[in-house]
Amino acid sequence: MFTHNKRLQYTVRVSETNSGLANLMLEQFGGPQGELAAACRYFTQYLAEDDPGRKDMLIDIATEELSHLEVIGTIVAMLNKGAKGRLSEAMEAEAELYKNISGAGNDSHVTQLLYGGGPPLTNSGGVPWSAAYIDTIGDPAADLRSNIAAEARAKIIYERLINCTDDPGVKEALGFLMTREISHQRSFEKALYSMQPSFPPGKLPGMKEFASVYYNMSDGEAGERGPWNSEPGFDYREAQPAVDGGSGMAEVGLMKTEKAAIDQLAIRTRSDPQSDPCTGAELGMDPASGPGGDAAKTSSPAPKPGSTGSSGRGSKSKP
Amino acid sequence: MFTHNKRLQYTVRVSETNSGLANLMLEQFGGPQGELAAACRYFTQYLAEDDPGRKDMLIDIATEELSHLEVIGTIVAMLNKGAKGRLSEAMEAEAELYKNISGAGNDSHVTQLLYGGGPPLTNSGGVPWSAAYIDTIGDPAADLRSNIAAEARAKIIYERLINCTDDPGVKEALGFLMTREISHQRSFEKALYSMQPSFPPGKLPGMKEFASVYYNMSDGEAGERGPWNSEPGFDYREAQPAVDGGSGMAEVGLMKTEKAAIDQLAIRTRSDPQSDPCTGAELGMDPASGPGGDAAKTSSPAPKPGSTGSSGRGSKSKP
Amino acid sequence: MFTHNKRLQYTVRVSETNSGLANLMLEQFGGPQGELAAACRYFTQYLAEDDPGRKDMLIDIATEELSHLEVIGTIVAMLNKGAKGRLSEAMEAEAELYKNISGAGNDSHVTQLLYGGGPPLTNSGGVPWSAAYIDTIGDPAADLRSNIAAEARAKIIYERLINCTDDPGVKEALGFLMTREISHQRSFEKALYSMQPSFPPGKLPGMKEFASVYYNMSDGEAGERGPWNSEPGFDYREAQPAVDGGSGMAEVGLMKTEKAAIDQLAIRTRSDPQSDPCTGAELGMDPASGPGGDAAKTSSPAPKPGSTGSSGRGSKSKP
Amino acid sequence: MFTHNKRLQYTVRVSETNSGLANLMLEQFGGPQGELAAACRYFTQYLAEDDPGRKDMLIDIATEELSHLEVIGTIVAMLNKGAKGRLSEAMEAEAELYKNISGAGNDSHVTQLLYGGGPPLTNSGGVPWSAAYIDTIGDPAADLRSNIAAEARAKIIYERLINCTDDPGVKEALGFLMTREISHQRSFEKALYSMQPSFPPGKLPGMKEFASVYYNMSDGEAGERGPWNSEPGFDYREAQPAVDGGSGMAEVGLMKTEKAAIDQLAIRTRSDPQSDPCTGAELGMDPASGPGGDAAKTSSPAPKPGSTGSSGRGSKSKP
Amino acid sequence: MFTHNKRLQYTVRVSETNSGLANLMLEQFGGPQGELAAACRYFTQYLAEDDPGRKDMLIDIATEELSHLEVIGTIVAMLNKGAKGRLSEAMEAEAELYKNISGAGNDSHVTQLLYGGGPPLTNSGGVPWSAAYIDTIGDPAADLRSNIAAEARAKIIYERLINCTDDPGVKEALGFLMTREISHQRSFEKALYSMQPSFPPGKLPGMKEFASVYYNMSDGEAGERGPWNSEPGFDYREAQPAVDGGSGMAEVGLMKTEKAAIDQLAIRTRSDPQSDPCTGAELGMDPASGPGGDAAKTSSPAPKPGSTGSSGRGSKSKP
Amino acid sequence: MFTHNKRLQYTVRVSETNSGLANLMLEQFGGPQGELAAACRYFTQYLAEDDPGRKDMLIDIATEELSHLEVIGTIVAMLNKGAKGRLSEAMEAEAELYKNISGAGNDSHVTQLLYGGGPPLTNSGGVPWSAAYIDTIGDPAADLRSNIAAEARAKIIYERLINCTDDPGVKEALGFLMTREISHQRSFEKALYSMQPSFPPGKLPGMKEFASVYYNMSDGEAGERGPWNSEPGFDYREAQPAVDGGSGMAEVGLMKTEKAAIDQLAIRTRSDPQSDPCTGAELGMDPASGPGGDAAKTSSPAPKPGSTGSSGRGSKSKP
Repeated sequence: MFTHNKRLQYTVRVSETNSGLANLMLEQFGGPQGELAAACRYFTQYLAEDDPGRKDMLIDIATEELSHLEVIGTIVAMLNKGAKGRLSEAMEAEAELYKNISGAGNDSHVTQLLYGGGPPLTNSGGVPWSAAYIDTIGDPAADLRSNIAAEARAKIIYERLINCTDDPGVKEALGFLMTREISHQRSFEKALYSMQPSFPPGKLPGMKEFASVYYNMSDGEAGERGPWNSEPGFDYREAQPAVDGGSGMAEVGLMKTEKAAIDQLAIRTRSDPQSDPCTGAELGMDPASGPGGDAAKTSSPAPKPGSTGSSGRGSKSKP
Repeated sequence: MFTHNKRLQYTVRVSETNSGLANLMLEQFGGPQGELAAACRYFTQYLAEDDPGRKDMLIDIATEELSHLEVIGTIVAMLNKGAKGRLSEAMEAEAELYKNISGAGNDSHVTQLLYGGGPPLTNSGGVPWSAAYIDTIGDPAADLRSNIAAEARAKIIYERLINCTDDPGVKEALGFLMTREISHQRSFEKALYSMQPSFPPGKLPGMKEFASVYYNMSDGEAGERGPWNSEPGFDYREAQPAVDGGSGMAEVGLMKTEKAAIDQLAIRTRSDPQSDPCTGAELGMDPASGPGGDAAKTSSPAPKPGSTGSSGRGSKSKP
Repeated sequence: MFTHNKRLQYTVRVSETNSGLANLMLEQFGGPQGELAAACRYFTQYLAEDDPGRKDMLIDIATEELSHLEVIGTIVAMLNKGAKGRLSEAMEAEAELYKNISGAGNDSHVTQLLYGGGPPLTNSGGVPWSAAYIDTIGDPAADLRSNIAAEARAKIIYERLINCTDDPGVKEALGFLMTREISHQRSFEKALYSMQPSFPPGKLPGMKEFASVYYNMSDGEAGERGPWNSEPGFDYREAQPAVDGGSGMAEVGLMKTEKAAIDQLAIRTRSDPQSDPCTGAELGMDPASGPGGDAAKTSSPAPKPGSTGSSGRGSKSKP
Repeated sequence: MFTHNKRLQYTVRVSETNSGLANLMLEQFGGPQGELAAACRYFTQYLAEDDPGRKDMLIDIATEELSHLEVIGTIVAMLNKGAKGRLSEAMEAEAELYKNISGAGNDSHVTQLLYGGGPPLTNSGGVPWSAAYIDTIGDPAADLRSNIAAEARAKIIYERLINCTDDPGVKEALGFLMTREISHQRSFEKALYSMQPSFPPGKLPGMKEFASVYYNMSDGEAGERGPWNSEPGFDYREAQPAVDGGSGMAEVGLMKTEKAAIDQLAIRTRSDPQSDPCTGAELGMDPASGPGGDAAKTSSPAPKPGSTGSSGRGSKSKP
Repeated sequence: MFTHNKRLQYTVRVSETNSGLANLMLEQFGGPQGELAAACRYFTQYLAEDDPGRKDMLIDIATEELSHLEVIGTIVAMLNKGAKGRLSEAMEAEAELYKNISGAGNDSHVTQLLYGGGPPLTNSGGVPWSAAYIDTIGDPAADLRSNIAAEARAKIIYERLINCTDDPGVKEALGFLMTREISHQRSFEKALYSMQPSFPPGKLPGMKEFASVYYNMSDGEAGERGPWNSEPGFDYREAQPAVDGGSGMAEVGLMKTEKAAIDQLAIRTRSDPQSDPCTGAELGMDPASGPGGDAAKTSSPAPKPGSTGSSGRGSKSKP
Repeated sequence: MFTHNKRLQYTVRVSETNSGLANLMLEQFGGPQGELAAACRYFTQYLAEDDPGRKDMLIDIATEELSHLEVIGTIVAMLNKGAKGRLSEAMEAEAELYKNISGAGNDSHVTQLLYGGGPPLTNSGGVPWSAAYIDTIGDPAADLRSNIAAEARAKIIYERLINCTDDPGVKEALGFLMTREISHQRSFEKALYSMQPSFPPGKLPGMKEFASVYYNMSDGEAGERGPWNSEPGFDYREAQPAVDGGSGMAEVGLMKTEKAAIDQLAIRTRSDPQSDPCTGAELGMDPASGPGGDAAKTSSPAPKPGSTGSSGRGSKSKP
C-alpha cells in the first residue's frame, strides 16, 4: 500500500515562471525516459518478482521514482503558474494571449491550451506517455539490464535539462534527481551481478558455432576494429548467406488443399512479364514531358490507336 | 513524497492459477478505465491544483488508486504464477506449452510470451496503456466531472469482472475495489457541487439564443421525446443550416500574393468535367465484365482505337 | 443514413489567414476534446442503445457534432488558405517559405509540410487523433456521465481558443460552438437523471462497510476538510493496510508442477545478498571519481588482483 | 540477406548546420510518408509474395528505400551536428543553449533534448513512427495501388522540402530522392497493369445493381458534375435509405435467454420521458443566470421545496 | 451541415448473435481499412478542396461512407446483442460468462468486457482507431491515388469477411458495402484522370537522369524481369553507390565553436580499439561455459589476478 | 547503401503451416523486442555516431538485424502460407474459414483477415510496431547500455518461442537468431567498456551527498538486504522528505499580473468546505439504498423540502 507525505523529497524553488522551460521539463515527467516510465517499470517488476532481496529493492526504487515524478511535476506546475492563470482568467488582450501561447518556440502551446497549464503526461513534443516505453519482459537477467540502461538514459536527459536553465533552484532540484539516477543504476548493477550466472540471460545456451562470430556486413572504408569484433573474443567473418550450409531458401510443407489454393491464387494474380501495359501514370503524363515530368519523350506512351488490339485492355504483348 | 507499506490495502487470496482470467483482469491494471489511469488522473490534477481542500482530496484518492493498482496487479501476478514458471523453465513438452499459450482463447499469449507472466501495463487486448486515456484539462469544473465519470466507468468494469469469476478470494478483492470507486465518485461529486457556480464550466457565458435550443438532426421514426429536448428546458427546433442568418458559406480575406498562389494552384490541378478519360480501373478491367466485375458490358470501356485522338492521353472531350 | 447540406450550420467569416492560429484550432478538430471525438462518442453509443428516447437524443447530438466538425474544420482550412497555396506553388524564395513554415512558433509546420495546409485529424501538437480518447463502455449510467464531462471539457477548450483570437468572425463561430456544448451537456444531464436510480451505476451494490469511508492517504499539512470527506457523508479514516482484517499479503494455490517450475526458477535466478560483486558500473568508473563521478574514492572498486578468487567472476563473498 | 556499403547512394553535402531544417527533414525519415514506411511496406510484401517478377521488384525497391533512408538520415545528422555537440558538451551559457533549443520555432527541441541531435524515427512533429502507417493487406491488386499512391505522396513531400531550403547540396540530394519516387511509382504501375484483370481487385464480383450508381448525398449549390458521376459510367441517383427495398431497419434473432437479459437491461436502465428531473447542471447553475450562464432565468430550476415529493430523488412527473 | 435519417442505407438482417463474428466485423468499423477511415479521409479532403467538381464528389462519398459506418456498426451491434445483455445482467453462472467471454477464440473479450458489447472504434484485434491511418497530404494528384488504393483495400477486406460468414443477411449487406467500394474507386479514378497532367504528381519535374532508371539492388536467383524494369520504359542498372559521381560520403560545414564542441565530444567518448576490457557480460558468465552459455572455454575471461594492472578498471592494453 | 542477396542468412525449413504459431513468431518481427526494433536502433545510432570503431560496429550489427528480420519474417510467411491461400481463394465453406480464422485461440485472425496472411509489423497481439520502442538518446554510454539490455531481452523472447514449437526447422532457425543476440550483446559490452570512463554516463558529476544513498521507501516485512543497498557501496537511510533540509514545499516567483490572475482564478473556483451540497450522485441514488447501493439509509440524502433554502442550489451551509 502506498501512502503520501505532503512534503516533497526535495524542495522546489522556482525564480520565475517560464512556460517554455516548463515544456522542456516534461521530458522527465511524461517522456519516454522520465519518472513515470521509471516508476512503472520497477513497480510492475516488483509485482511479479519472487526473489526477496530484489523484490524489496524494486519497490524501494519504484516508490522513490514516484516521489521524483512529484518533484519534476511540481517544477512544471510552478513554471506554468503564470500561464495557468493568464489563459483561464483572460485578463490580457487576445493578441497578448496568442503571443504567449505561440511565442515560446516550442510545444508549450499544447500544455497551455489543452492542459490548462497543468503538467500533462506527455513528453516535450506533446506526445502522450505510452506503456510501449516500458521494456520489462519478466526475466531478471534482462530486466535488470533494462533498468541499468534506463537509469543511464534518465541521467543524460537530466544533464541536458540542467544545461538549459540558469534558474538556481531548478538547477539544484534537477541535480538531485540526476544524482539519484546514478545511485539507482549502481543498485541495479549490484543486483544484476549478485545473480550468478547472469550471462547469457535465460536458460537455453546458444549454438556454440555462432556465439563468438562477428559478421562484417558493411563494405567500404572501415574504421578501426576493436575488442568488439577481434580476437580473442570474436571470430571475424565476412557476411555470408546460408551460414548453416543449406540453400538459404525457405520451404514449407503444404497440405494438398493448401497447395491447390496457393496455386490458384498464383494463377489468378500472376504478372505477365512479356506485356508492356499502358499504365495509369502514362494516362496522366503530360505528353510533352518524359517520365520525370521534363520535356523528353516518354518511352512507353499512352495507348495509341490499334495498340489495345483484341485484349481491349491497353496492354500489348512483346513478340 | 510517497512511501510504501509491504502489506496490501486488501488481502489477495487466489485459489488457483488461470492465465486466461489474469488476462481479463488487465483491464483494470493497464486498461483505459483501470487504476493506473485513475492514479495518474488525480495525481496530475493534484500537482496543478491550488484550492487547499480539493488538493488534499486529489492526493488522497490518487494515493489510494496507486494502492489499488497494486492490489489488482497482485491478482494478475498470482493468477499468472503458473504460466510464469512454466514458460521460463520449460519443464513441459513444446506442444503442451504451445497449447497453454494459445489455448486460453483470449490474449493471455501476449502476457506470457512477451511479458513472462508479469502484469504488463496493457489492457486485456494487449494494447499498451496510453496517457491519451487521461482527460484532465486543468479546469476544476470540467476535471471533477471527468473524475465522476471515470469512477462510474471503473465501477462498471469491476462489476463485469466480478460476474466472470467464481474464485471467492478474487471476487472479494474485486468487490472491495469496486466499492471504493463508488466512494470516490461520491467524494468528487461533493467537491464539484461545493464549488458554486459550477455550470456552465469556465468563465465565458454562452450565447443566449443557442444555449437552450435542441436541434432535431435525425429524421424518421422517432422515439419519445423527453426532458432532454422538451419544454421547459429546451426549445425544440428542426435542423437548419446557417442558424446565424448568414449564407452558411465560408470566406477568408486573402493577401494578393496568397490569392495569386491559390489561383495558380486551382488552374494547375483543375479537373475537366467535360472529359471522359480512360482510367486505371478501366485498363485493369476484365473486358468480359462490367465495373463490378460481373459479365455485363462496361459502360466506359478502355480506350478504343482512335479514341485518344490528338491528346494522346486516352481522354475524350464530350461535345 | 446521413445526408449533407452544403451550407454550414454556422457561417464562417475569417478576416485574414494565419497558419499559427489555424494550428491552435486543431485542438477542437482532431484533438482529444474536439468534435470528432464527440461525434464518434455519441454515434457509437447510438448504435448499441435500445432505450428509444436516449437513442434519438444520441443520434441528434452526434449528427450535430459532425456538423460542428465541419465548422471548425472550415475555420482551419480558411486560416490555412494562404499557407496551402504558398508551399505548393512555391512562388516565394526558399528562405521566405522556410520562415513561414518554422516561424509561427507552434506546430503549424506539420500541417503545412505534411498535410499541405488541409485540416488534419491531429491536435495542435500534431498528435494523430486516437479512438483511445473515447471512453464509452456501453453502460448508460456511466456513458451519460462521460458525455457530461466531455461536453464540459469541450466548452473550456473553446473558451481558451476564444480568448486567443481577436478575429471577430472566428470568435463568433467559436462562441456558437461553445454554446452548443453547454446545451448538449444539459441534455445529457436530463437524460442521466431521468433514468432512476442512476447511482451507483450498474447492478451490483457495493460492500456496505467501505462505500462511505474516506481514507486519509497523505500525511502533512492538510488543507481544510470538506463535504467530500466529512460527516455525515463520510467516515474519515487514516490509511491502513489490510482493511479486510487479513494479512495484507497475497497467496495463490499452485499445482505441483507449477510449484516445481517456480521453485526451479527461483533457484536459477536467486540473488546472493552476501556477495559484493564487481559491476559493470565499476568497470566503467573513473578511478579518480566516486560513484557520482566526483573525485572521491569509490567504495566498491573494480576487481583487484586476487579478488576474483576461485569463482573467476569478480564477486567476493562476505565473511 | 542484406549487406551494406559505407558509401551512400547519393553524396550528401550540407553547407551549414541548421537544427530547424533538420527537424523538417524528419518527415521523410520517420514520418508517415517517409523512407522507413516505404522500405517496410515493400519488404513485408516481398516476404509474402509468390509471383517471381513482382517479388524481385519488391525487394529491389525495398532495398533502395533503405538506402534512401540512409541518405535522408545522413542529411538530418549533418544538419544537427552543431546541436549535438553543443548540448552534450555545454560549452555555452545556459541561456544560449535554451535559446538554441527553443528558438527554431518548430519541434527541433525534441530532437535535441530527447535524441541528442541524432535522427529519431519520428516525423517533424515528434510523433514516433508507427506501423499503422503501412497499409499493406496482402493482395497484389490492392497493395500495388497502395504502393503507387505512397510513391505519389512521398514525391510531394520531397517537393515541399525542396521548396524550403536553399542549401544547394541538400536541394540536390532531395531532388535525387524525389526523382526515384517517380521512377518507383512507374514500376509499380507497370506491375499493376501487367496483372490482368486487376479491377475490381480480388475475386468476388460486385452486385451489378450498385456497382455503377453514384449517390448524391449532399444537397445545396453543387459544383459541376463530371465523368466521376455522369453517364455513361455512372447512374446518378439521389440519396435514398434502404436501397435494398427493405425497411432500412436492423433486426437480429435472439435466443430466449438473450431476450430475457436484454429485456431486463432495458427495464433497469429505461429513461422516463415524462419526468423533469433536477440535474447536476442545475445544482451547479448560478441562479442569477440562465443555462448558458447569462443573467436570464433558468427554465428548469433546481429542486424547490416540495418538488422532490415522494420519490425523494428530485424528479417530478409530468401530469 | 449533416443530417441523419433513422433508416439505414441498407437493411440489416442478422439471423443469430455471434460475438466472435461481431469481432471480425470490427475491421470495417474501426479498423485501418474501415469506414471511419474512409469517411474521415474524404471529409478532410473536402474541407480543403477548391475544385468545385472534386469538392462535390468528396463530400458525397464521405457522407455515404458515414452511412456505411452506420451499416457495419449496426451489424456489430446486432451480432453482439446477446453478449451485451448477458454480461450486464449476469443472468448466468460466472463460469458460463467466463467461457462466453474467452471462448470465441478471437478478441471479442475486449468488446464485451471493455465496451459492453457496443461497437468500439477498434479493429478486430482491439487496437484503437488512429488518424495515423489517414494518408491525405493535401495534393489532389496524390490524394486521389490514395483514395483509389484505399477503396481497393476496403473491397478486399469486405471480400474476406463475406468468405467467413454464412448468415445470408450479413452476407448481403456486406456485399452491398463491398460493391460501393468498387463504385467509389471508379469515381476517384475518373476524377484523377480528368485532371491533366496528373503524373508526376506535383509541380517539380524529376531529374531526367534518374527518372527512368531501375536499380537491381538484390543479387541471387532472380525471377523474370518485366515491364516494370525493362526497356523501353526503364534503364536497368546494377546497384551502385554515389550515383552522382561524388564520394558517397557526407560532409557539413561547421562553425568554429561547433567544431570545438564536436571534437571535445569525440575525445570524451572515444572507444579504445586497443583495449580488451573486462565486460559486464564476462562478470556474469558462468566460468564453465563459453560465451553462448555452453561448456566451452571463454575466449575472453573475466579479469584475472593482475590483469587490471594500474588502471584498476579491468581493461588491458594490447601491445 | 544497402544491397540484398536473395539467399537468407539462415535456411528456413518449416514442416507444416500453422497460423497460430505464425502469430506468436510476430513478437520477433514487429514486436517491441523484435528484429525491426533492433535494426532501427543500431541504424539510427550509426547515422549520428562519429567514433569510427563504434560506427562500423553499429552498421554491421544493424545490417545483420535486418537480415534476421528477413529470416523471422520468412518463417511467419511460411507458417501462414496455407491461411493466405485459403482465405483469398475461399475454396472452403464459410463455416470452415470462420473456424480457421477464429479457432487458433490467439490473434492470428488479425493477420489473416487484415493482412492476408502476410507478415505484418505488429506484435503477437496485433499492436502495430512503434518507434516508441526505440530508446536511443544519442549518448554512447547510455545507448550502448540500452543495446546490451535490448539484446538480452531479444534472447529471452527467442528462448520462449523455442520452448513453444517442436518443428525442428523452426527451432533451429530460432536457435541461430537467439545465438546471434548473445554475440551482439557481447560486442556491445566490449564497446561500452572500451570507452573509459563510462560511468556515470555523460559529463556532469552527481551531487556527492546523494550518489551513494539508498532510501528505504517501503515499510513492512523486508527481504534480505544485499550489495545493492549495503555498505560499503551504499549509505542506507530511511525515507525522508526534504532531504535538502528545506521545507519540502514548492515556491515560485510570480509577476504582479500573474498573481492577480491566479488569485482571481482561486476565488472563482474555490470550494466551500462548510457546505454540504446536494450532488448528482444523490439525485440518482435509490432512496431505499445507501451510497453503495445497498438498502441502508443514505447519510446525505437528496435535497429534502426546504433544504435548498435561499440559495436555490440545493446546498446548505453548515452552522
